Amino acid sequence: MYNFDVKKAVDGCISWIREWFEKNGKGCNVIIGISGGKDSSVTAALCCAALGKDKVFGVLMPDGEQCDIEYSREICRHLGIEHMEVNIRPAVAGVYESLDGRLDISEQTRINLPPRIRMATLYAISQSKNGRVANTCNLSEDWVGYSTRYGDCAGDFGPISRFTVAEVKQIGKYLGIPEKFIEKAPSDGLSGKTDEDKLGFAYAVLDKYIREGIIEDENTKARIDHLHAANLFKLETLPVYEFDPAE
Amino acid sequence: MYNFDVKKAVDGCISWIREWFEKNGKGCNVIIGISGGKDSSVTAALCCAALGKDKVFGVLMPDGEQCDIEYSREICRHLGIEHMEVNIRPAVAGVYESLDGRLDISEQTRINLPPRIRMATLYAISQSKNGRVANTCNLSEDWVGYSTRYGDCAGDFGPISRFTVAEVKQIGKYLGIPEKFIEKAPSDGLSGKTDEDKLGFAYAVLDKYIREGIIEDENTKARIDHLHAANLFKLETLPVYEFDPAE
Repeated sequence: MYNFDVKKAVDGCISWIREWFEKNGKGCNVIIGISGGKDSSVTAALCCAALGKDKVFGVLMPDGEQCDIEYSREICRHLGIEHMEVNIRPAVAGVYESLDGRLDISEQTRINLPPRIRMATLYAISQSKNGRVANTCNLSEDWVGYSTRYGDCAGDFGPISRFTVAEVKQIGKYLGIPEKFIEKAPSDGLSGKTDEDKLGFAYAVLDKYIREGIIEDENTKARIDHLHAANLFKLETLPVYEFDPAE
Repeated sequence: MYNFDVKKAVDGCISWIREWFEKNGKGCNVIIGISGGKDSSVTAALCCAALGKDKVFGVLMPDGEQCDIEYSREICRHLGIEHMEVNIRPAVAGVYESLDGRLDISEQTRINLPPRIRMATLYAISQSKNGRVANTCNLSEDWVGYSTRYGDCAGDFGPISRFTVAEVKQIGKYLGIPEKFIEKAPSDGLSGKTDEDKLGFAYAVLDKYIREGIIEDENTKARIDHLHAANLFKLETLPVYEFDPAE
């Protein structure tokens, strides 16, 4: 039976964040997109523990109206971090405006454009505030590619990239983050469905498979294995033609 | 003395593009941002040679007025590829509008936001046109990090990433691209300076150093070595806390 040592994980992660900033951005601020869910909440809390809350700046990025924006404001208040709300709607609308009806916009485009505009917005702020952008993807999402390449996949450093959803939740509780942020069902805010609805399996099933190799349903196993293989490219460097002049 | 075998390089690159699409996007279209300069022109020409011009779609992305946009239109006509002009100004302005004067916008932000909006625009088009986005960075630029992370660094495949500026020019001539596209001095279109002005050295000097290890001026060598080391992160995967539960 797999046993997660939450104290060791948190201590290790905090040390790593400190070392990373020492080498890659001494004195820089953490710039982090805050959704009100567990991943950004836990990542922000880890950065506060590592660098101090004065070094962490939250960016709330609703796309037009966001019915659960109060969660994001509350977690910032809970952590005591400075934050700013930046609506991405004008920029998203700007892209559509310039396309001017000359393109049939696919569902894929509608899903992935907002995360890319959020990335561009986060970096616009980061590069004006001596910042480093925190990535907030977790291992379970990365495993099945539930993320937008060059969108929420982006960032300068990834504190929770090797923790499963279950582990991120344990870290959140250990760090004293109120239950409601940790248990909020993640959703893209577009489809009305939760991530788990769309993936077709529960993160608990995925996490057990990742950590213990155990999975009962053969169809779910096949689906996870397929998604994993098909999305690995999102975590890899750009594939290039490897010309070697010496050959 | 270094000798570049242009025919071998072109043949190898064309084969690689075909194989990459066979494995990673059978029947997909190439979506490529066209600036009118050598890198996008040569990349587009290589993709046309590999997949046929009907499979290559050019996207011209001026930021407001672009005085040299006619170059971009001409190279598309020369190659015979379908293309579309999409002004990125409304989206760029949308980001600034949402920041609403609450941030002192740095020079770094002003330089890097447009390339990131271009990336988001290219992917918005690509995901609606069964596309794969071509990266157009060359080895010399990558060597010194003359690119925007998650902006023009992005893409699905990189045909010219391992060719120096001098080699890209030779490939362009070999493929019959008119001289004016190949010799157009690259510039970010913002500062009025060329890339070489800003880097402080000529690409010819950099290219010789990359391919032959020869460089005369010690200060230039130090500057190139510094830029290379400081920008390597742009070509690497996201640094993450490598938690290992088995440890």
